[in-house]
Amino acid sequence: MNAILKGRLVGVGTGPGDPELLTLKAARALAEANVVAYFAKRGNNSNARAIVEARFRQDMVELPLLYPVTTEIDKDHDDYRAQITDFYEQSAEQVAEHLAAGKMVAVLSEGDPLFYGSYMHLHVRLAHRFPTEVIPGITAMSGCWSQTGVPIVQGDDVLTVLPGTMSEFELSRRLADTDAAVIMKVGRNLPKIRRALEATGKLSKAVYVERGTMPGSVSMRLAEKPDDKAPYFAIVLVAGWSTRPGAPGAKP
Amino acid sequence: MNAILKGRLVGVGTGPGDPELLTLKAARALAEANVVAYFAKRGNNSNARAIVEARFRQDMVELPLLYPVTTEIDKDHDDYRAQITDFYEQSAEQVAEHLAAGKMVAVLSEGDPLFYGSYMHLHVRLAHRFPTEVIPGITAMSGCWSQTGVPIVQGDDVLTVLPGTMSEFELSRRLADTDAAVIMKVGRNLPKIRRALEATGKLSKAVYVERGTMPGSVSMRLAEKPDDKAPYFAIVLVAGWSTRPGAPGAKP
Repeated sequence: MNAILKGRLVGVGTGPGDPELLTLKAARALAEANVVAYFAKRGNNSNARAIVEARFRQDMVELPLLYPVTTEIDKDHDDYRAQITDFYEQSAEQVAEHLAAGKMVAVLSEGDPLFYGSYMHLHVRLAHRFPTEVIPGITAMSGCWSQTGVPIVQGDDVLTVLPGTMSEFELSRRLADTDAAVIMKVGRNLPKIRRALEATGKLSKAVYVERGTMPGSVSMRLAEKPDDKAPYFAIVLVAGWSTRPGAPGAKP
Repeated sequence: MNAILKGRLVGVGTGPGDPELLTLKAARALAEANVVAYFAKRGNNSNARAIVEARFRQDMVELPLLYPVTTEIDKDHDDYRAQITDFYEQSAEQVAEHLAAGKMVAVLSEGDPLFYGSYMHLHVRLAHRFPTEVIPGITAMSGCWSQTGVPIVQGDDVLTVLPGTMSEFELSRRLADTDAAVIMKVGRNLPKIRRALEATGKLSKAVYVERGTMPGSVSMRLAEKPDDKAPYFAIVLVAGWSTRPGAPGAKP
């Protein structure tokens, strides 16, 4: 007779890049896991894997989940949606096999698993079927404002997190209506982001960060950035907190 | 002749409450610091201190920075502003004395230092005078959505972080205009928050979390919470990500 095996799914946030920004809990999960899974594009390395690779053990099973090649199909096209949905279903079943065999599976997620993380696609398919735990990680945006020393929000500030993919009108409208902002997915959207910041009088406050907390990180005032070249994962920060009590320069 | 002493200021995020959610980098900073400082109300314990107390060393100097009694003065009153500004100035000078003596001072901050953290009041006064580093921490909101398994944002979702202190009109307006939301400073604002969520059709999605990642934590769908009692630091989460490709229940 077999003992009842009970697998466990653990979403592990690896933080923004610096391997020391892993939590103690995530380090323990990686020391205990039987299987370590992560999403990656075929032919590319996984950033999340690179952050924690030094903790991989000989007796750990690696389970890369490789995205199908989809760049030639438009993201809003039905074929793309069908293909990516199939891929997430299949990935979830691959993980489920290990869980059903009683294994502890750590799924790596760069940053924080439930904050724009691909781990979520497994979570929603498996968390009702197996014991599941999510270990939060330091987000990329937090890594960026900490590294650059930008006090992002204080007191009753409103913070808005915006994808740079939005239209210039939407970006401008939302930037005008918030105390602080984080703009993600910068890449080729940078000229548009710059115009939206200019239009709302916030360009002078904007800070550009590339590869935050990682080797080769670059940061500067966006107004001083001489070109519009930016990687997709660059981030723009606009700090709130200018007229709060106790802030230097605030009204007394 | 004395060697040139160079103190170092380190803002240390202690995370949301679970001591295992400290980063490896924060743990190292606490192992190295000569002085550990933290803000607290007179007669109250510091949450940040409690999270990392087990790491305090005999040879470490503790520097509690105790808020002046201000509850009897209105927060918008000039006397309050003057008193609290004085307090931050004095606190910064207390820390500066240790830095000038060449000491490494770790300033504890619950959650993430530059995300609504009181550490910011020292940072803006000292970071231009002494070598400074900020070690990010897991935010309370991230601890809450991880513990409750709420996938907060995905894809091109907009996330808005709102203080529950806002007017009902402002809360409603902003909740209607975002994919996902985090409402902080809940406390006695809960009835108003509930009405704003109801008005915008989002009450059924809202999750209430109290003492996230801490012992005695409570979470439930807000619609099922039978009373309006809530501590100040309770959080309400409204997840985005409902019609994204690959999401279960999404259009194919």
